[in-house]
Amino acid sequence: MVPGIQFMHTKAVNMQKPASFIYLDNASTTKTDPLVAETMIPYLTEVYGNASSIHQPGRVAQVAVEESREKIARVLQCEVSEIIFTSGATESNNAAIAGLAEKAGPGHIITSLAEHHAVLHPLHELEKKGYSCTYLKPGPGGVISASQVEEALQPDTIFVSLMLVNNETGGITPVHEIASLCQSKNIPLHSDTVQAAGKIRWDVQQLGVDLLSLSSHKFHGPKGCGILYVKAGSPWSPFLQGGSQERNRRGGTLNVAGIAGTGKAMEILQENFDKNLKHVAQLSQKLISGLQEALPGIVHLNRHPDPALSVPHIVNCSFPLPDGKAIDGEMLLLNLDIEGICVSNGSACTSGAIEPSHVLQSLGLDSKTAKSSIRFSLSKFTTTEEIDYVLAALPPIIRRMAANA
Amino acid sequence: MVPGIQFMHTKAVNMQKPASFIYLDNASTTKTDPLVAETMIPYLTEVYGNASSIHQPGRVAQVAVEESREKIARVLQCEVSEIIFTSGATESNNAAIAGLAEKAGPGHIITSLAEHHAVLHPLHELEKKGYSCTYLKPGPGGVISASQVEEALQPDTIFVSLMLVNNETGGITPVHEIASLCQSKNIPLHSDTVQAAGKIRWDVQQLGVDLLSLSSHKFHGPKGCGILYVKAGSPWSPFLQGGSQERNRRGGTLNVAGIAGTGKAMEILQENFDKNLKHVAQLSQKLISGLQEALPGIVHLNRHPDPALSVPHIVNCSFPLPDGKAIDGEMLLLNLDIEGICVSNGSACTSGAIEPSHVLQSLGLDSKTAKSSIRFSLSKFTTTEEIDYVLAALPPIIRRMAANA
Repeated sequence: MVPGIQFMHTKAVNMQKPASFIYLDNASTTKTDPLVAETMIPYLTEVYGNASSIHQPGRVAQVAVEESREKIARVLQCEVSEIIFTSGATESNNAAIAGLAEKAGPGHIITSLAEHHAVLHPLHELEKKGYSCTYLKPGPGGVISASQVEEALQPDTIFVSLMLVNNETGGITPVHEIASLCQSKNIPLHSDTVQAAGKIRWDVQQLGVDLLSLSSHKFHGPKGCGILYVKAGSPWSPFLQGGSQERNRRGGTLNVAGIAGTGKAMEILQENFDKNLKHVAQLSQKLISGLQEALPGIVHLNRHPDPALSVPHIVNCSFPLPDGKAIDGEMLLLNLDIEGICVSNGSACTSGAIEPSHVLQSLGLDSKTAKSSIRFSLSKFTTTEEIDYVLAALPPIIRRMAANA
Repeated sequence: MVPGIQFMHTKAVNMQKPASFIYLDNASTTKTDPLVAETMIPYLTEVYGNASSIHQPGRVAQVAVEESREKIARVLQCEVSEIIFTSGATESNNAAIAGLAEKAGPGHIITSLAEHHAVLHPLHELEKKGYSCTYLKPGPGGVISASQVEEALQPDTIFVSLMLVNNETGGITPVHEIASLCQSKNIPLHSDTVQAAGKIRWDVQQLGVDLLSLSSHKFHGPKGCGILYVKAGSPWSPFLQGGSQERNRRGGTLNVAGIAGTGKAMEILQENFDKNLKHVAQLSQKLISGLQEALPGIVHLNRHPDPALSVPHIVNCSFPLPDGKAIDGEMLLLNLDIEGICVSNGSACTSGAIEPSHVLQSLGLDSKTAKSSIRFSLSKFTTTEEIDYVLAALPPIIRRMAANA
């Protein structure tokens, strides 16, 4: 037991381990909505035409693709011709950045240290090719302000890329304010909006971005399918090159099943939007209060202090111990896994690497504290019973680990 | 009626229109094998973990991915670490070319005029960036010889990219001979083997290539999933950049369902390989003989004269009329579609564009004759009854169109 910490006794709640697992890693990936799977299955079985073929099964596939595109355009409030289907957000982000850079030629780019690697890594490559990048240091929760962008602007700034909702902290960057600034300077703005789908209300008209990236499997759609929105007339050139699909903007046979599922997932997202958001916000608050109550003084929330600047779906916390020690996040994850609780210590994309989160480090957390962090991420499928179970199971694990730290 | 042509009377076969359609466009995309769909469905529903997550549902997903990789490595006769999952052959081809070019820096590249656009278009982009390309003119059936490659070699040749089986004609290029030549000169060789999967027997040991591209939906697997094989130690750098997936060689959340389906499809391909090949060869020969018998003198086969240098799955023919006129391929496709017969006039990737096939033009066909071509492509699911139906339905259409040409 680490001296100076007193743990309260956890209330007696249902500690029975659930049959399968408690999934609180929805920022990594989400459970496919059963209605999405149902929508997809015909296109994985009997309706197998190539959407580019002009014969009947091809046209049936094409109709599925275009219906999906219409659903998405309706939600995003854009033209159907502005939607490009991709293989996921990594491709969308890579394509957005490569296409803006290619079109503009070498110049200056503004982004932040808290972006996803699918934005940062392509930018690092561009730096080797004569482009220069300013990596803004985020404020609490990974949030970037419009004034930070304004200060970083240079005469040769060719574009800005900033995420709307941070994938590790849930922090909301005021992208619409940054868009106004960029528009006034005639500088294209790309936003990685992957973690914003279904979490806050927005559309491209309100955001004012020129390009944005989405990933279906982050909003109960299928893995392997994403969206790149490119506003008509944006100075962008295509990335994946091959056939004339997607109006010559993305080669490759269309993933009809995935696309149909994406449209359905986007449609479902709008149903019960407020109800689902309220549900998640209540559970999220229950989780936070419960942890703080059970583990007083050692729960550090890695989020913006203003709840209006965080999505409730993500609860990222560290467990700094009073004597400067920190609980090992990797071990904590394994212990939780044994209890059937699925969480993450950052981005699933890097979780194999057991590296401290670059996002948390950009917020000023030292490597040790960053490594002691875990991210709970909730969805509309999360239940009160699951949060109760976590609140019963987690504190004893922390106490045991703290005692041995 | 065009003078000088005499049509034989078509034998009375079952002319009843099938309930749905006769699918002879398997080079565009194939019917998903029911066993593949069955393999995928759990990963579209209950087993939704991110394969990069370390918790239980993540590990279950990871096991599915690695089992698929093992199945594929067993068929290709390579190491599991040499298999990279992609979103399809367009990405695989783009990644192969971009990664080889990036690693080598500007230099000379050898390819052919009959390659797929997913190879040609990235090469055209490289030409704008200081690389030079030799586009070899293919022989009959789109076949390139090792001696053509040898003659084109330059001191600064950085790589060669040639397809194994041409997607429009079925012509087989002796890639293993070209590989021996490239190996002796220490020049990497990439092969687009998309149309070769399940059509001829090969593996990477026998082919001797450094990189190759495959697309699941061309061999009864799902759309939106492909394979890039990169031999260990090849001078290649990654294309899609983001997370540390695929040993840092391809960012992006893994499409677990698609990957599981790809492994299953590859496994199934090996079952009854010879039986399926014989079945397709017999039907293919029946189709060719039947057309030649019913339409004497006006069926021109766009293939290599040596049957050993063509896969039987693809039957590409033009209908040149004696007076220099040609039947309009697009209209022919539409007429066949009305009869429920699904074929293509080239690559489905360009079929929306109604442009003459660049492959057929590279073989010396004029634009008019190229446009008058149609491609039948068969699969293990094609039946004798379907070929009978085509042989009954097609000749009257050709006669009617010839009469009005």
